[in-house]
Amino acid sequence: LGNIGNAITGVGAEARRLAKEDSRRIVHAFKVGLAVALVSLLYFFDFFFDGFGVNAMWAVMTVVVVFEFSVGATLGKGVNRAIATLLGGALGFAAHDAASYTGDKVQVILLGLSVFVIAVVATFCRFFPKMRTRYDYGLLIFILTFSLISVSGYRNDEVWDMAYGRLTTILVGCCATVLVCSLVRPVWAGEDLHKLTASNIQQLGTFLEVFGGVYFQEEAKDDKNQVLLNDYKSVLNSKGVEDSLTPLQHRAKIKEPCKMIISESSSALRELAMGIQTMTCSPSRDVHVVNAKSAAAKLKALMKTGLWPDADFLGIVPAVAVASLLTEVVLCTVKINEAVAKLAS
Amino acid sequence: LGNIGNAITGVGAEARRLAKEDSRRIVHAFKVGLAVALVSLLYFFDFFFDGFGVNAMWAVMTVVVVFEFSVGATLGKGVNRAIATLLGGALGFAAHDAASYTGDKVQVILLGLSVFVIAVVATFCRFFPKMRTRYDYGLLIFILTFSLISVSGYRNDEVWDMAYGRLTTILVGCCATVLVCSLVRPVWAGEDLHKLTASNIQQLGTFLEVFGGVYFQEEAKDDKNQVLLNDYKSVLNSKGVEDSLTPLQHRAKIKEPCKMIISESSSALRELAMGIQTMTCSPSRDVHVVNAKSAAAKLKALMKTGLWPDADFLGIVPAVAVASLLTEVVLCTVKINEAVAKLAS
Repeated sequence: LGNIGNAITGVGAEARRLAKEDSRRIVHAFKVGLAVALVSLLYFFDFFFDGFGVNAMWAVMTVVVVFEFSVGATLGKGVNRAIATLLGGALGFAAHDAASYTGDKVQVILLGLSVFVIAVVATFCRFFPKMRTRYDYGLLIFILTFSLISVSGYRNDEVWDMAYGRLTTILVGCCATVLVCSLVRPVWAGEDLHKLTASNIQQLGTFLEVFGGVYFQEEAKDDKNQVLLNDYKSVLNSKGVEDSLTPLQHRAKIKEPCKMIISESSSALRELAMGIQTMTCSPSRDVHVVNAKSAAAKLKALMKTGLWPDADFLGIVPAVAVASLLTEVVLCTVKINEAVAKLAS
Repeated sequence: LGNIGNAITGVGAEARRLAKEDSRRIVHAFKVGLAVALVSLLYFFDFFFDGFGVNAMWAVMTVVVVFEFSVGATLGKGVNRAIATLLGGALGFAAHDAASYTGDKVQVILLGLSVFVIAVVATFCRFFPKMRTRYDYGLLIFILTFSLISVSGYRNDEVWDMAYGRLTTILVGCCATVLVCSLVRPVWAGEDLHKLTASNIQQLGTFLEVFGGVYFQEEAKDDKNQVLLNDYKSVLNSKGVEDSLTPLQHRAKIKEPCKMIISESSSALRELAMGIQTMTCSPSRDVHVVNAKSAAAKLKALMKTGLWPDADFLGIVPAVAVASLLTEVVLCTVKINEAVAKLAS
């Protein structure tokens, strides 16, 4: 009994964490509930007022399968479903019509063969990388609709009614989904990417400053800084730096230009992040970039002189690695700055 | 017209490439075609012999959606679909039954509310990472079945018939899919992974040897070697090595232990790959690993002496980086060797 209790509290804690991490998840769940309930009631009433008939269930099916987290993905799936249903339905109707002019046995063979060929071709198309990324779901629905319509066994006019009813209910489902998804607290994937980019650049700036402080041992190695530093290391994949640290007196020789690079680059990165977030362009970031560049040039010149004449090689390599990573950081900052300037103009 | 011709030949070439890369793709397409055609004909005949009725279309739907490339994935989706349909159907039937004892208006509210709550909870469950990887499809089908059954608007006994018919046809579809998928030229994902691991380890060994030859400029820098080398570099992510190459006379000083490490490690890696492929365990790989280890120790000792007294730092760093990468390669080889020995025992 205690185990079950533990499991339930565990699930509860995980649910709270997921909801806290991104509260739009709860909103999304409620949006799906709303759309499904709306369309289900349409289906329910339909039995009494006799509108769409059994076909109304296709609306429910469409809502459940098409509803995605972001508006763009939902639209993509809805359009995929609508076009694939139309195409598959039209082709299936044509096949059914063509086969109905032949005898019973020939009809079975023709229809079976057509379903086979269409399924083989469409399935193979799903392996094309371009198709896979954009039309995978559509190809599935295309096979499905073609099979269901062509082999339905109804008379021609009945098939027409069925196809028409199914298509309209699927369109009703698509419309309900897209409306609920885009009107009730919509999630735009582009906006997410925008915010993520800005916050990543800002974090990089913060990490840089903390790294500089800890590496030249100016700030206390407290826990908060260490956590930040570990994140930073995982970003730059520079595990080797800590494994064999260079003695402090060797590090001190490259301290001045390094600190300069760090402070100017992180200022530039933070201003760039702010610029991306607010869609404005402050001119002071250019000054920071120029300063970082000149500091990098100074560091490079310093490295060419015999800085550490009496040290052993393995001990110095980490310091040299830090120096070359920092010059790379400057190069990357310059590139980000150019990209932001291009986007802003 | 020429454009259309070009597009068609382009698609044809891409299709040939995809088929050549993995001929099982064509087999898979034919398998799907076979399964869909088989179940479609069941659906077709059903109209004349009156067995499953309209419900037969659920078999077609199941085959199209559940059929995956590997046997494991197909089984997973099939089991997901079967269990989710059972659970959703049972819950939906219970909700429908409970609501039918109340008045008309209360019934609508109760059913709408239950669909809403189930859809909200199940959609939120899809955000749990564990659920997402294993039961994402099942949760979708669960919402769908619950909605379709609970809000069906039939009388209680009719609902029972419908749920029963739908479940049996879905089971028929699942069985047809799993049978065709696992009996006709089955694809096992585990086997693929096994082969991929062996070939990756073997490639790593080859890359190492080519890298050694080119770096110490013993072999001509022909195109084939350069291509292999670029692959190798992308594997180790060691772009910096080429950017500023150390003069050849400096490189020559670490040549002997480096070449030793390279040849022993690559021999060990190739034997390990062979061992994984053939599921055998040759004892000579241990000898290679021991040799590589002692060469790495020799290299480390060499680095501690003043190897390059008169060189500037920036020029030597790449050579030091190569040396430390090679010692890491030895460490990794040792780990792979231990893992293989563990798996073989």
